[in-house]
Amino acid sequence: MYDTADTIAAITTPLGESGIGAVRISGPDAYAVGDKIFKSKSAVPLKERRDRSIQYGTIVDENGTCIDEVLALIMKGPHSYTAEDVLEIQCHGGREALESILQLILRSGARMANPGEFTERAFVNGRIDLAQAEAVMDVIQAKSRAGLTSAVSQLEGRLSKVINKTRKDLTELVTRLEVMIDYPEEDLEDIAVPDVSGALQEMQEKLQHMLEESQNGRMIRDGVMAAIAGTPNAGKSSLLNRLLQEERAIVTDVPGTTRDVLEEWITLRGVPVCLVDTAGIRETDDTVEKIGVSRARRYLDRADIILAVIDGSRPLTDEDKDILQSAADKNVIIVLNKTDLPSVMTSQDLSTYGFPICPISASTGDGLEELKDRLLQEVLKGGFTDGPSALLTNTRHIELVRQSAEALERARQSLQDGMPLDCAVIDIRQAWDTLGSITGDTVHDDIVEEIFSRFCLGK
Amino acid sequence: MYDTADTIAAITTPLGESGIGAVRISGPDAYAVGDKIFKSKSAVPLKERRDRSIQYGTIVDENGTCIDEVLALIMKGPHSYTAEDVLEIQCHGGREALESILQLILRSGARMANPGEFTERAFVNGRIDLAQAEAVMDVIQAKSRAGLTSAVSQLEGRLSKVINKTRKDLTELVTRLEVMIDYPEEDLEDIAVPDVSGALQEMQEKLQHMLEESQNGRMIRDGVMAAIAGTPNAGKSSLLNRLLQEERAIVTDVPGTTRDVLEEWITLRGVPVCLVDTAGIRETDDTVEKIGVSRARRYLDRADIILAVIDGSRPLTDEDKDILQSAADKNVIIVLNKTDLPSVMTSQDLSTYGFPICPISASTGDGLEELKDRLLQEVLKGGFTDGPSALLTNTRHIELVRQSAEALERARQSLQDGMPLDCAVIDIRQAWDTLGSITGDTVHDDIVEEIFSRFCLGK
Repeated sequence: MYDTADTIAAITTPLGESGIGAVRISGPDAYAVGDKIFKSKSAVPLKERRDRSIQYGTIVDENGTCIDEVLALIMKGPHSYTAEDVLEIQCHGGREALESILQLILRSGARMANPGEFTERAFVNGRIDLAQAEAVMDVIQAKSRAGLTSAVSQLEGRLSKVINKTRKDLTELVTRLEVMIDYPEEDLEDIAVPDVSGALQEMQEKLQHMLEESQNGRMIRDGVMAAIAGTPNAGKSSLLNRLLQEERAIVTDVPGTTRDVLEEWITLRGVPVCLVDTAGIRETDDTVEKIGVSRARRYLDRADIILAVIDGSRPLTDEDKDILQSAADKNVIIVLNKTDLPSVMTSQDLSTYGFPICPISASTGDGLEELKDRLLQEVLKGGFTDGPSALLTNTRHIELVRQSAEALERARQSLQDGMPLDCAVIDIRQAWDTLGSITGDTVHDDIVEEIFSRFCLGK
Repeated sequence: MYDTADTIAAITTPLGESGIGAVRISGPDAYAVGDKIFKSKSAVPLKERRDRSIQYGTIVDENGTCIDEVLALIMKGPHSYTAEDVLEIQCHGGREALESILQLILRSGARMANPGEFTERAFVNGRIDLAQAEAVMDVIQAKSRAGLTSAVSQLEGRLSKVINKTRKDLTELVTRLEVMIDYPEEDLEDIAVPDVSGALQEMQEKLQHMLEESQNGRMIRDGVMAAIAGTPNAGKSSLLNRLLQEERAIVTDVPGTTRDVLEEWITLRGVPVCLVDTAGIRETDDTVEKIGVSRARRYLDRADIILAVIDGSRPLTDEDKDILQSAADKNVIIVLNKTDLPSVMTSQDLSTYGFPICPISASTGDGLEELKDRLLQEVLKGGFTDGPSALLTNTRHIELVRQSAEALERARQSLQDGMPLDCAVIDIRQAWDTLGSITGDTVHDDIVEEIFSRFCLGK
């Protein structure tokens, strides 16, 4: 790792038939490699051509055969993606042209880039920090507009700014404590310790608030799982179809997601929502149906929210009651369906369960908008006034902030308990260190390696 | 069609997770649209920035939300792909970023481009001719290095040059004939007619030669289908596996190709070859096996060449003879397999069939290289000395050249028969016209439309 002495290359667009494809070369020999294979009217070496210019020409192999007409983009370091000399070859978007050009580049002195290596170089060369680098993959993998917005804001350094500010404040506190340790005779402790203690508490609360919001962040990034539950014929499938018709369905291919025929993704107000139509839940002796029911229950346990669909045109059945009771400790919205039919049940009848109730008609669409708003309100508690947004979306960051908050709590406690000041200093330093892993200031090489290995090739 | 007054936009890279993605805008308002959504440090309008320059910035929507960090490529007309003002937005290669940017562009005054519309504009604006435009899709869809090379040479105008030269020569002949028609008293006919007739024959032969080579061109572009036939246990699958191991397998997804589990693509000396392992052919009463056998026979009928695998370690069976006899009128190579075992059969035993014979051992690899060379020799008759190359690869072009050659033959015949000179002029004019459809000089709008409709979106 961290070897930036050589020149790397990779295809940076997906393989497939398209208008354009691109191969990127980065490193000290990017233009020397380019000069061997790129032919244009001008004989000026690429290195001497204007920075940030687009050059028209052809890629010609060792035998003089023209591989493709291309544009060569010159982006000289340090003002490039990797902060090194970058040459991007834009060719026609077919597999054969892209692969032939890449192979020629590799024969001409560059080596194949590892997944994430371009972004890793941007990090190693100090152009972006680790949190920004991680945001790159979040931008690429964003499943919804809200997820994209939050990833781009992290890419632009919003999270890093907050982390850096907190670390600077922690350094200041440590300095103050160390002055007291070095000059105990000054007897500043009585005034200063409550001061430091208060500052610690404030910072801890800030981190705590970020953690609370991170739940939203994760949902914005990875999506909300909404399980649609209810007895057969309550209208689960109609509700699902209605929502799919009204909202843009997302074509997703997320690794690790159980690809079940019943899962459908939509975006609600920019938030990706996975709708799971569970099999009708009821007591049954049929083996096949039993499997369906047990799978449905597993979904209900994993779901961020349950939409319990009740048929309002008939009295509440025992099965309806079963479902509502078994979901007692969960996030539930009662969807009182079939308001277009003469209603037998009212919201009052259901109020004993303590869940919010949304009357709708899946067949006419009445009440749908209210249901959507309510769904987001219930899962993104309090975080949806100005549109979805959160600083923390990445599991690694969340864990590090949690550890930092705990260290600050320990520091505050030891000050309160009148322990030696060194104890608090150690804990504060640990919090400072832990937060530094987010931006990569204090991170171990193997963690960096692990992070970039999860990148896609060509980024 | 031919409406180039408006500004068009489309995603020009395949959708998928990758380093970069691109959206292209072309037309009179390309930079006006760009100025609405692209924000950078400089406040200079895009139109006034340097041609062929790369600008760093962000795409910001109507609400001020940043969609992505991007590079904006400025390529002003007429020196751009479409010969119009072009703005290319390069963003992170995720679906959400690309689609959000495209939607914003469409809201900002551009309309969605039709498939092939960028290239159609390049044609309408006179930057490239129709044969070159058609080559663009061949470059993108190239399945092999040889196919790519021949498409790029067409893109660079190699075919167009030959067609234009031929048409110029035809115009000259028409002029000479018309002089004779206008001034019959000059009595030039006796000298001039044999002259013109000879010139016509020469041109006709040139076209005929192109047509003969076109068989190669089509194979270079679309691939050679080689069916591996033979009795069970003759070693068909071992041969297939051996070839697949030694050559780069192509991952292909060509529309219209029968995707049979038995089809495997490789490239031999740059030519795409589809290897079809047919089911063992023999008389059988088993219904399932019968279906396999009848499918195998269909493949044998369609194949460009049949590799008839014979087990040389045992005597020729009746089934072997059946296969060889039923392929009597086809392009066949007898692959005498198992040379590593004590041989019972010799090439002499098989010579009565009149097919070339290649002794090999699929298990050791002996004789494989000779087999590959022989295969290409047999299918690309005579056309493989300097590597594969052909002017004509496109079915439309082949048909037009064939019609032109026929018209020239008619003209020559009528001169020879002493018919009025006008008859010859009409036929020569028709040949001139027909050849003009290749480059698009004389083509009907609906044909142009049909050609570009087969392009991929974003090209």
